[in-house]
Amino acid sequence: MDFLSDFLLRFVSQLQSPTLGFLIGGIVVASLGSRLSIPDPVYKFIVFMLLMKVGLTGGQGIRSSNLAEILLPAMFAVIMGILIVFIGRYTLCNLPKVKTEDGIATAGLFGAVSGSTLAAALTLLETQKITYEPWAAALYPFMDIPALVTAIVLASIYTKKQRDISNEYPSKQSSNADTKVKIWPIIQESLQGSALSALLLGLALGLITRPESVYESFYSPLFRGLLSVLMLIMGMEAAARLKELRQVAQWYAVYAFIAPLLHGFIAFGFGMIAHYLTNFSYGGVVILAVIAASSSDISGPPTLRAGIPSANPSAYIGASTAIGTPVAIALGIPLYIGLAQALMGGG
Amino acid sequence: MDFLSDFLLRFVSQLQSPTLGFLIGGIVVASLGSRLSIPDPVYKFIVFMLLMKVGLTGGQGIRSSNLAEILLPAMFAVIMGILIVFIGRYTLCNLPKVKTEDGIATAGLFGAVSGSTLAAALTLLETQKITYEPWAAALYPFMDIPALVTAIVLASIYTKKQRDISNEYPSKQSSNADTKVKIWPIIQESLQGSALSALLLGLALGLITRPESVYESFYSPLFRGLLSVLMLIMGMEAAARLKELRQVAQWYAVYAFIAPLLHGFIAFGFGMIAHYLTNFSYGGVVILAVIAASSSDISGPPTLRAGIPSANPSAYIGASTAIGTPVAIALGIPLYIGLAQALMGGG
Amino acid sequence: MDFLSDFLLRFVSQLQSPTLGFLIGGIVVASLGSRLSIPDPVYKFIVFMLLMKVGLTGGQGIRSSNLAEILLPAMFAVIMGILIVFIGRYTLCNLPKVKTEDGIATAGLFGAVSGSTLAAALTLLETQKITYEPWAAALYPFMDIPALVTAIVLASIYTKKQRDISNEYPSKQSSNADTKVKIWPIIQESLQGSALSALLLGLALGLITRPESVYESFYSPLFRGLLSVLMLIMGMEAAARLKELRQVAQWYAVYAFIAPLLHGFIAFGFGMIAHYLTNFSYGGVVILAVIAASSSDISGPPTLRAGIPSANPSAYIGASTAIGTPVAIALGIPLYIGLAQALMGGG
Repeated sequence: MDFLSDFLLRFVSQLQSPTLGFLIGGIVVASLGSRLSIPDPVYKFIVFMLLMKVGLTGGQGIRSSNLAEILLPAMFAVIMGILIVFIGRYTLCNLPKVKTEDGIATAGLFGAVSGSTLAAALTLLETQKITYEPWAAALYPFMDIPALVTAIVLASIYTKKQRDISNEYPSKQSSNADTKVKIWPIIQESLQGSALSALLLGLALGLITRPESVYESFYSPLFRGLLSVLMLIMGMEAAARLKELRQVAQWYAVYAFIAPLLHGFIAFGFGMIAHYLTNFSYGGVVILAVIAASSSDISGPPTLRAGIPSANPSAYIGASTAIGTPVAIALGIPLYIGLAQALMGGG
Repeated sequence: MDFLSDFLLRFVSQLQSPTLGFLIGGIVVASLGSRLSIPDPVYKFIVFMLLMKVGLTGGQGIRSSNLAEILLPAMFAVIMGILIVFIGRYTLCNLPKVKTEDGIATAGLFGAVSGSTLAAALTLLETQKITYEPWAAALYPFMDIPALVTAIVLASIYTKKQRDISNEYPSKQSSNADTKVKIWPIIQESLQGSALSALLLGLALGLITRPESVYESFYSPLFRGLLSVLMLIMGMEAAARLKELRQVAQWYAVYAFIAPLLHGFIAFGFGMIAHYLTNFSYGGVVILAVIAASSSDISGPPTLRAGIPSANPSAYIGASTAIGTPVAIALGIPLYIGLAQALMGGG
Repeated sequence: MDFLSDFLLRFVSQLQSPTLGFLIGGIVVASLGSRLSIPDPVYKFIVFMLLMKVGLTGGQGIRSSNLAEILLPAMFAVIMGILIVFIGRYTLCNLPKVKTEDGIATAGLFGAVSGSTLAAALTLLETQKITYEPWAAALYPFMDIPALVTAIVLASIYTKKQRDISNEYPSKQSSNADTKVKIWPIIQESLQGSALSALLLGLALGLITRPESVYESFYSPLFRGLLSVLMLIMGMEAAARLKELRQVAQWYAVYAFIAPLLHGFIAFGFGMIAHYLTNFSYGGVVILAVIAASSSDISGPPTLRAGIPSANPSAYIGASTAIGTPVAIALGIPLYIGLAQALMGGG
């Protein structure tokens, strides 16, 4: 009882944080038909600033870290990335009116990671004074890339099977071309995406150069404020995408609501294993859960569009942006933080 | 004598403030043909930042305010909004070469409120250490919306009369459609405009969430700097619009110069009534005067374009941007502040 | 020996500064094919912010300066601007496969000044705690304008000669129109460019108004951070332009590598003369060297495109952006600072 009431209290108190307030404000304002908008170039720059800051923090932190510690959490991140896609493949894809390619692409996007959701989690962890490993943000690519690769590979296998069934004598040319999915180009495509590039560049600069002067005068103090603007944009975007989502099967909405919370809880479990085995911090466990709960909004969609051209972007982007991301941020983050705090108090 | 010299001294000293300096700098630079420009997305973002900050300040302040106090100033704001349009309707519209619809639209724009002018006034009040009610910025919509509604209603009545005169047997269809002007859609249109949306969202977030962390690290410290950039843009825009203004009747220029100062003084009078009756602060009186003196530059024009389609935008936007706004900021604000200071000293 | 080892040590330590780190990071990231990009409106705004800050600093500093001191350095700046173009005219233009107009335009761009390179130098000087005259940044136009004017004049003379040779009986009309190059329009064109306008506006505002409140809350604290973003952009731009540069004669690359360093050393020499004659500070000597080493990236190209329409922009912009600027920033600045420090230590 004590555990539950403690957890609920902490959960509710976080809803007043500006991070969540701006997200919900954005949803409300856009739903009321406001013409308020943040110009796209500003949006892109804000995302760059946030991921560069997350990267710089990580890079500076890694300098004094024991890198062996990252092994187990990174392995769990890879497993989660693959597992999420398989879960989607065998649940969402089997639901009525869901096209298999669309379902796989959606699962891929939910396996991939959102830099904005990660930034929101880091801010809320700091507000709650929960420490985490400086390299925890570096888990991002370990989950993001495997998820996208798995989705594209599964979609290619499915497409090939379909073709073989419909055509008993496939022309040599097309069958040859499609026989194997090339994995390296998908990885490269992911790494070259703007979000991962910014994060990795920040990591490298934090590790190699001495960025303290710009970090402390610029990237760090502006972080929370820029995040509040980004949350507003994401809220407005969620409201705008909801209409799109209504045009595809309703099961996407159900999946998009349940999946982030489920993925987060599974990852939280993996994180707790790492906590007991290698003393992975509670803050790190929350971060692992949050990146599993998050679904990609910036770099994922173009990679999937190129990798699974037959899938309908309205289905997967709508599900992720309109429901998945708000659920991951406004429900998931407070949930995992509350859970961690309750466990910390109890332990 | 003492009163006048004191007033003049204070007036002149304010011309060195960066807020006015950047405005005048923008006018000079653009007049000299410079290619310097601030990109439009940056301009829109700056406006958002300023109005969000004004809203957040207001929202946080309202929490500990006695809301009954706002009643009288808000009522005066509504009266001013309507009064300004009627003044324009019976002066500007009767001048030679001024088309009635153009005149009404211009009066509507001068009755509507400019967020940038309001932001400039708040900054100068703080520089001069004059306190004001935290909810004073919330007077904005109480003047803005009535002015736009009145202008559109007056224009519709005029257009309908013209049609009835020119056509003694109006077809049933058209007369039915135009019989009544729908007021609610105009109010909705105003509230959905980007400026008012940002201000009201800020108010709501300031009231409901705990935005202190982002307010103090982001919105508040960047306010003055962003305002200086906005003033520069408005100065450059004023110089650019001056050419447009030359193509319409010169009376627009005369109106655009006199009207802001006149409106401000009338509102200052109303504010002083509230000062004596309900102890409305001198800072609040200045704010009431400034929003009356200001003319809308962001949200007003699209509403008027939709509501009075027959009016010529060059006339009303030119008059407001090229003359009205610079006069309100560079003459109006120092004037009302100087007057308040002289009265404070004298009282 | 001591002098050399001291110099080398200081040189290497500067490569870890974030200013150079972001520049090199940008080159690496873009070379790896990343899709990371900073939107153009943000880039333009950053340049405005930096030059406004440089101008405001200068303007505030000039107030308490003895302006007679600026005479000799300003004269040297003018000489350098003209000299650089003549050096290019009689070296680069005579190399195989280099079209004379292209060579002159390239020399003009290398004589003109880059605001970003200047901003980088000011930051590194401050990091190294080397003082400089507050008006030193105001040397910018004294080198920039003479270089562009000289290049356009030389190109016009060359074009005219070519036409006279190919056509012994020139039609009166065309020869009349081209007889004299009008110098005033070139100067005006330069002054109206966005970079010089921002710098001069900042100087004027710093001199006339009291910008301390916005300077200390906005322009100054954001300077280093914005510069880091600009360096990143310039690095990415350099990598992108390298391809373009490969399509023109290789001699451009050789010139673009050697010229900045050579120009900087000549200007350093002039600066040392001013140091001994009028006590020009070591920091000022470095600034004079850096603006000589820099090549224009914002305002130069459009002026040259208008002034020497027959020249190929790929040649001059490629040489400047892909090689000239990175060399000036990553090699030139640390070199001149290291040299100044070694001389300061020795003196």
